[in-house]
Amino acid sequence: MTFTDLPPYDGDDKPHDECGVFGMYSPQPLDLAWLTYLGIFALQHRGQEAAGIAVSDGDKFHVEKDLGLVTQVFDERRLDSVRLANARVSIGHVRYSTTGSNLRFNAQPLTTRTNKGILGLAHNGNFVNAREVRNQMLMEGALFATTNDSEVMLNLIARESHMDLVEATAGAMQQLRGGYACVLMSRTALIGFRDPNGVRPLVIGQRDGPDGAYVIASEPCALFAVGARLLRDVLPGELVWVDHDGLHSLMVNPSRPTPCSFEWIYFARSDSRLDNVDTHESRIRMGEQLAREFPVSADIVVPVPDSGMGAAIGYARESGIPFDYGLYKNPFAGRTFLAPTQEARDLKVKMKLSPTSAVRGKRVVLIDDSIVRGTTSRQIVNLLREAGATEVHFRVSSPPIKHPCFYGIDTAARKELVASTHSIEQIRELIGADSLKFISERGLREAVSGPGLCLACFNGEYPAGTPLLGDVDKLALEV
Amino acid sequence: MTFTDLPPYDGDDKPHDECGVFGMYSPQPLDLAWLTYLGIFALQHRGQEAAGIAVSDGDKFHVEKDLGLVTQVFDERRLDSVRLANARVSIGHVRYSTTGSNLRFNAQPLTTRTNKGILGLAHNGNFVNAREVRNQMLMEGALFATTNDSEVMLNLIARESHMDLVEATAGAMQQLRGGYACVLMSRTALIGFRDPNGVRPLVIGQRDGPDGAYVIASEPCALFAVGARLLRDVLPGELVWVDHDGLHSLMVNPSRPTPCSFEWIYFARSDSRLDNVDTHESRIRMGEQLAREFPVSADIVVPVPDSGMGAAIGYARESGIPFDYGLYKNPFAGRTFLAPTQEARDLKVKMKLSPTSAVRGKRVVLIDDSIVRGTTSRQIVNLLREAGATEVHFRVSSPPIKHPCFYGIDTAARKELVASTHSIEQIRELIGADSLKFISERGLREAVSGPGLCLACFNGEYPAGTPLLGDVDKLALEV
Amino acid sequence: MTFTDLPPYDGDDKPHDECGVFGMYSPQPLDLAWLTYLGIFALQHRGQEAAGIAVSDGDKFHVEKDLGLVTQVFDERRLDSVRLANARVSIGHVRYSTTGSNLRFNAQPLTTRTNKGILGLAHNGNFVNAREVRNQMLMEGALFATTNDSEVMLNLIARESHMDLVEATAGAMQQLRGGYACVLMSRTALIGFRDPNGVRPLVIGQRDGPDGAYVIASEPCALFAVGARLLRDVLPGELVWVDHDGLHSLMVNPSRPTPCSFEWIYFARSDSRLDNVDTHESRIRMGEQLAREFPVSADIVVPVPDSGMGAAIGYARESGIPFDYGLYKNPFAGRTFLAPTQEARDLKVKMKLSPTSAVRGKRVVLIDDSIVRGTTSRQIVNLLREAGATEVHFRVSSPPIKHPCFYGIDTAARKELVASTHSIEQIRELIGADSLKFISERGLREAVSGPGLCLACFNGEYPAGTPLLGDVDKLALEV
Amino acid sequence: MTFTDLPPYDGDDKPHDECGVFGMYSPQPLDLAWLTYLGIFALQHRGQEAAGIAVSDGDKFHVEKDLGLVTQVFDERRLDSVRLANARVSIGHVRYSTTGSNLRFNAQPLTTRTNKGILGLAHNGNFVNAREVRNQMLMEGALFATTNDSEVMLNLIARESHMDLVEATAGAMQQLRGGYACVLMSRTALIGFRDPNGVRPLVIGQRDGPDGAYVIASEPCALFAVGARLLRDVLPGELVWVDHDGLHSLMVNPSRPTPCSFEWIYFARSDSRLDNVDTHESRIRMGEQLAREFPVSADIVVPVPDSGMGAAIGYARESGIPFDYGLYKNPFAGRTFLAPTQEARDLKVKMKLSPTSAVRGKRVVLIDDSIVRGTTSRQIVNLLREAGATEVHFRVSSPPIKHPCFYGIDTAARKELVASTHSIEQIRELIGADSLKFISERGLREAVSGPGLCLACFNGEYPAGTPLLGDVDKLALEV
Repeated sequence: MTFTDLPPYDGDDKPHDECGVFGMYSPQPLDLAWLTYLGIFALQHRGQEAAGIAVSDGDKFHVEKDLGLVTQVFDERRLDSVRLANARVSIGHVRYSTTGSNLRFNAQPLTTRTNKGILGLAHNGNFVNAREVRNQMLMEGALFATTNDSEVMLNLIARESHMDLVEATAGAMQQLRGGYACVLMSRTALIGFRDPNGVRPLVIGQRDGPDGAYVIASEPCALFAVGARLLRDVLPGELVWVDHDGLHSLMVNPSRPTPCSFEWIYFARSDSRLDNVDTHESRIRMGEQLAREFPVSADIVVPVPDSGMGAAIGYARESGIPFDYGLYKNPFAGRTFLAPTQEARDLKVKMKLSPTSAVRGKRVVLIDDSIVRGTTSRQIVNLLREAGATEVHFRVSSPPIKHPCFYGIDTAARKELVASTHSIEQIRELIGADSLKFISERGLREAVSGPGLCLACFNGEYPAGTPLLGDVDKLALEV
Repeated sequence: MTFTDLPPYDGDDKPHDECGVFGMYSPQPLDLAWLTYLGIFALQHRGQEAAGIAVSDGDKFHVEKDLGLVTQVFDERRLDSVRLANARVSIGHVRYSTTGSNLRFNAQPLTTRTNKGILGLAHNGNFVNAREVRNQMLMEGALFATTNDSEVMLNLIARESHMDLVEATAGAMQQLRGGYACVLMSRTALIGFRDPNGVRPLVIGQRDGPDGAYVIASEPCALFAVGARLLRDVLPGELVWVDHDGLHSLMVNPSRPTPCSFEWIYFARSDSRLDNVDTHESRIRMGEQLAREFPVSADIVVPVPDSGMGAAIGYARESGIPFDYGLYKNPFAGRTFLAPTQEARDLKVKMKLSPTSAVRGKRVVLIDDSIVRGTTSRQIVNLLREAGATEVHFRVSSPPIKHPCFYGIDTAARKELVASTHSIEQIRELIGADSLKFISERGLREAVSGPGLCLACFNGEYPAGTPLLGDVDKLALEV
Repeated sequence: MTFTDLPPYDGDDKPHDECGVFGMYSPQPLDLAWLTYLGIFALQHRGQEAAGIAVSDGDKFHVEKDLGLVTQVFDERRLDSVRLANARVSIGHVRYSTTGSNLRFNAQPLTTRTNKGILGLAHNGNFVNAREVRNQMLMEGALFATTNDSEVMLNLIARESHMDLVEATAGAMQQLRGGYACVLMSRTALIGFRDPNGVRPLVIGQRDGPDGAYVIASEPCALFAVGARLLRDVLPGELVWVDHDGLHSLMVNPSRPTPCSFEWIYFARSDSRLDNVDTHESRIRMGEQLAREFPVSADIVVPVPDSGMGAAIGYARESGIPFDYGLYKNPFAGRTFLAPTQEARDLKVKMKLSPTSAVRGKRVVLIDDSIVRGTTSRQIVNLLREAGATEVHFRVSSPPIKHPCFYGIDTAARKELVASTHSIEQIRELIGADSLKFISERGLREAVSGPGLCLACFNGEYPAGTPLLGDVDKLALEV
Repeated sequence: MTFTDLPPYDGDDKPHDECGVFGMYSPQPLDLAWLTYLGIFALQHRGQEAAGIAVSDGDKFHVEKDLGLVTQVFDERRLDSVRLANARVSIGHVRYSTTGSNLRFNAQPLTTRTNKGILGLAHNGNFVNAREVRNQMLMEGALFATTNDSEVMLNLIARESHMDLVEATAGAMQQLRGGYACVLMSRTALIGFRDPNGVRPLVIGQRDGPDGAYVIASEPCALFAVGARLLRDVLPGELVWVDHDGLHSLMVNPSRPTPCSFEWIYFARSDSRLDNVDTHESRIRMGEQLAREFPVSADIVVPVPDSGMGAAIGYARESGIPFDYGLYKNPFAGRTFLAPTQEARDLKVKMKLSPTSAVRGKRVVLIDDSIVRGTTSRQIVNLLREAGATEVHFRVSSPPIKHPCFYGIDTAARKELVASTHSIEQIRELIGADSLKFISERGLREAVSGPGLCLACFNGEYPAGTPLLGDVDKLALEV
């Protein structure tokens, strides 16, 4: 087990999603190894640290996982090693770790042997009471091979030796609180379930044609990648399963729906529709809302590529100020770029983003989706000024992030959140903008206009509770 | 020496530039290994198949090169292995091979021992008479370790044992015809030279501050990456060299300037300025020109990301039709994506580009920079229609490509060039667009409005001649 | 987790030991990562499929393990990753798997979090009732991440949450039957224990000098490798532990000592002394005994290198027939040699062993330590005849192997054991020797003359019992 | 091109041979990639730093080479990449570099394009006038991609554009002096040639059966490995070639035969017969000679494994003192063993060689083949004393090495040769032996009793001359 030292994603001051999950069940033989590869490749934006695939044909059960991008972990040989001629069920996972522990043995799917046979679990999100449950089980004699929340879930399922797999999983859902979306496979069934508030997304799809295979995934793009169409979202608190009898549903513990607002602000791909709200459209509305809330006299609207694109188009439309491509983004920038010194680390932003001639002599409205630490924002503003921008008006399509997320988003530690320790005016000064405005919470709600939203990182109201322990920084589970 | 089988860059039907070159000379000790790494990283878009760096301190001469991206070839350990405490001169190279022979031993810089000491050469472009010169030298007893044009250049230089390095290089320039831009280093000097027509670009920069190191590179972005500002372009037919006495120039064989138009259409980064013409601005003008030449009634203007961006903004501005982000581009798509079958190969475009909700129910003006084979274009049009676009009007910011390039661009074989065998109407039908229009040659000239342009791939007029042999397909040099 | 396909050790028809174990406890800071590397390197002959090291300083607990030789798994970087400045306790392991399942996740040390803190276990041998105990624990809700016997042991230890670690380990020893020798570490203590019959070896040593660190290992050579001298063997059924108070002992369940005879015949290094019997000396005595039991008229005595060396020297001494080096052994032969076809597989022996001129025209007494399948023996006899040997008299320093080992030795499946299905005369004919003789059981006992011996693979008398299940071939634990 | 930092072969104070060469020509299609793999695998003892194979079918010409052992360089995939369905001619090479420059681009076969088509060359040995010839050719305008002597040979061949390949090769032989044995291939012919004195070995073989393919190799073991029998040695100064007309011979420049004595002392495998003298038999005679020249009263004769084996058997036979296996050699010791500190470097010998109980309380005659620096000898003597040997009498089956080899053997720099700066008595004291004796030159001659011998490293009489330059340490060719 290697404690690796992958640097954080380069030149990037964004919240990071924990994971993407994917599962398939096919009544007829399909190349599920290959399809699962496509599915998690489409979810790569949700996690770049590790990738894994498990496949079963009802008898054999293969799993491969490792640190790295999907295309790094899976070459032909390694994909072959999970391929089964009569594959029936599979799951896949891409991971971004919240706790900074890029342990190889924490890569998912997590597989284990239990009294319900061999099981594989892939999850997105966090259980806020995992630590208490885990400590209790340790006292009762359980072993934990990993520090992964998934293992707590699997232990809860295994403990109920008198229940069948669906019952035991529903029982485990009732004991673990938090924001999560999971896929679970046995040799013969695929299960998907989502937390009571639906904080983390999960959708169901089905392939047309003879196999009619079912797919469960974090976002619709993963369905499309395998030739499936979107059936519907898994509902908050719902458990669905697929076996030889088809698709079944059980409402386990539904509560008030509060899906994570950051899925629309930044995480989800702009071709995704979650809980019946389109991401691209909501981003354009965020930009329009920003333009209404915080108009400014300027010459061009420039997105921070690529995440500010939708809001910039919206801002330009509502304000009438021309949209322009003022920042070139080097498509080869990424985590493998070397940066041995501090000076070099500053170079990272410069090697990734470079102003075009569009900004020279212009008053620029710069649109980004969020500000976490503010370091990158300052460098971007600086780059624009060096390239001849006369004014830089910064507009952000999310409210200030002041609180940590306990539901699977890595927002940086609270003390690093610039908005939790600085006023907006102080941040403006810090990043060197001529003006700085964040969309209002109300404006964000209206732009998404969905079923309710989790805004905990903005306002500290946690719909699924917080860890019980006084010290919430000690989420890492230790013996 | 491994004959590798890297697939062509995935889901991509673009012309490919052969290479990017970079060189530095510093009168004071600088970490040239690191700076050259930054320089070729900024040029990565010009070649993704191989990368290399050579460094000398006046005595030692280190070189590292291999197949792969800059960040794949150079990890810390390998960059260290070319690092020299008192580095004085360095060159670097990124490569895209024209002939499909991704040979490791063809990676550059090419280094050799000659009567002028050890030399390193990195080149971009092609010598159209390399084969004849090579065969002549073989008959005279020369050895060729590679099939690389660079080795012909080096043999010509070495043969003139009575001349110094600058004289011999100027002599070699006079014997080799074509489109090329090269950097050449000895242990104590850096040389840069550009073909008589300036087909391939080359610029000179200098770092501010105490070292005042000189930089020669394919594009200005590589200068900025190492903290240098742009001094000027190397002129067509000019040879410049830098040694302990500073920067010198020799006009060897200048001719009518006809830089490659594709640098402005597609190759050069949108933050580059070549031969005094800004690429981003010229792309916006191409879009405006297209809108004037071929207006259409539509709802949104959508770029094929990222290369259609500038022209799409221009088209939207001139036409008044709203710009929108109608195609999501997966930033993780790239050459390492597995695609074992034909069906899977079709998936490649789908895994790379995905329509957003913006196109649903809309008449779309789709802007791309070029069409080579047309295969990708057809898939994109199809994706848009499946996503609900009611009309797709395809606009291309380059004229139809009908002729091969002999100056270092890989445009596909002539019979694969869809425009050399099909009428525009036939292409329109093939790709399934409602209308298809290419910018006129005159329109392109006006949009670039530079010093003259090579338009050979559009009109077959080759300013620097063609290979002498009847069969131009046999460019590969064989014994 | 990669299901690898390492071929069995090439050109080798030997029984294979399951593992080598190693542990250290130092009252003063020592570079235990490095010393453990040395220790398991010295034990490499006991297992070539996987290697691992765990180190703790009382707080941090690092572990690295992977498939491969010690020197393949541990390069500088990876050894550094388990290095701790104030290391106090460590264990290491080399593995040869009995069941053919070269799973990466079965590599040891196995580490887990329990109510006794984090624990690491490395074991050599087999528990014959592991399957029943495992199935019972599964029914009670336990998870098993691996198919490793060690995990059963750790579950038994964890289950006794009211006991301390030493008590719980002693309790687990009483529930698991078989032949085994284990080292177990917590953050602050090292434990070693050996099965009631002492089937598998385990020795204790101590470093001279200021640190006085204790070492527990499978063979004395591992003690010498880290600068320790041999204190004594761990006794059959004994549990020893080392903590800040020094070395302690607990006799848990001693029984009649019957150490594995194959340690002296073949496994243990010829510089090892186990249970007070020197291996090299006992091998010479085996050869002398063979010469007395089965004399023959011949010209030279030739060992199959290297394992027949000791017995060949003994045979030559007792018989007066000159010893000679008649078979050259290629030191580069090993598992990485390619052998795509059956013809090529035959080549493996030929590429490993080659007759010297010594055998030409000679009557050869060929000495080997054992015959398992007989395939290699036939090839060696054939090689000698082709090289001009006029007679080949095969002498084997172990009795015929007729029964499988359940205590950690991989002897091949019973039906592959040539001596379980053929008479000695039939084997002689099969391998093409002029005569074939095996040492008698009594002769072997006298040559070793130790405290009793396990001879189960020769006579089917299993001192520590056999698996309870009817089908002993299904030792692999499955859910 | 990576400047690697492979450590010298561990715990080993031996002269090192430069290389092994191998070539095949088959009139019928054969899997020459695979057979050449077998051939160079059998020659692995002659060079462990790099390996390479080139194969042609008359049209295609494939080559693969890299740093590492044969089994490290060639996995299935890489062997496949040189495989040709209708292979006709092939060569292979294993390399140990004399100059310490483990450059990847110096790996062989060296391939190049010339006016005689593409050629591949693999050589063993050194040209003493390579530097002068090379400098002359540089002045005439030649390029040198490598610092490899082979490239000088290829340039000489290419320069004679009016001659055919055989003539040009014979011409090159006449211009280069030294000790060498080479195989050279074009697309349609295989050539082998040996220096005028036959310093380096080269043999010819032929496969039985329908293909009757010819083989040329450094030692007969490589013939046997591919199913060929030994026809004869290539004679000193002879050039042989094989093409569709069969095997041909040309005596180019024969001189007095003086093959390298170290082939019999140490280099060649003990199953080899070179120039009609068997290596194993000659080693036994060396031991017998040593016993006659330097008898001693002792209890056992112990070889330093494995190279002292033959001489130890001879010494034991002649003296009547029993042979015993007193030093266990760890078969896993090798170059990949980590040894970060000086203390650890001392450990290397200890990890490789370990005394058995045989030496305890005994007067030991220790037999080794040579002493170069003496460092390892001292450590071995020390190990034996620590293990209880009462006396250690060191006997060496070669005379003291006092002079460097210019014909392809790496004996260490002259100042490191302990015998060139110390008397035998001083060396005895240095290594701590009770007595130390080297075989006499005359005794060595008699033991080999071949056609004459090169004894230059013992007596400084160089049959093929020395480098012309005053400073013979500057053999490395530099521009």
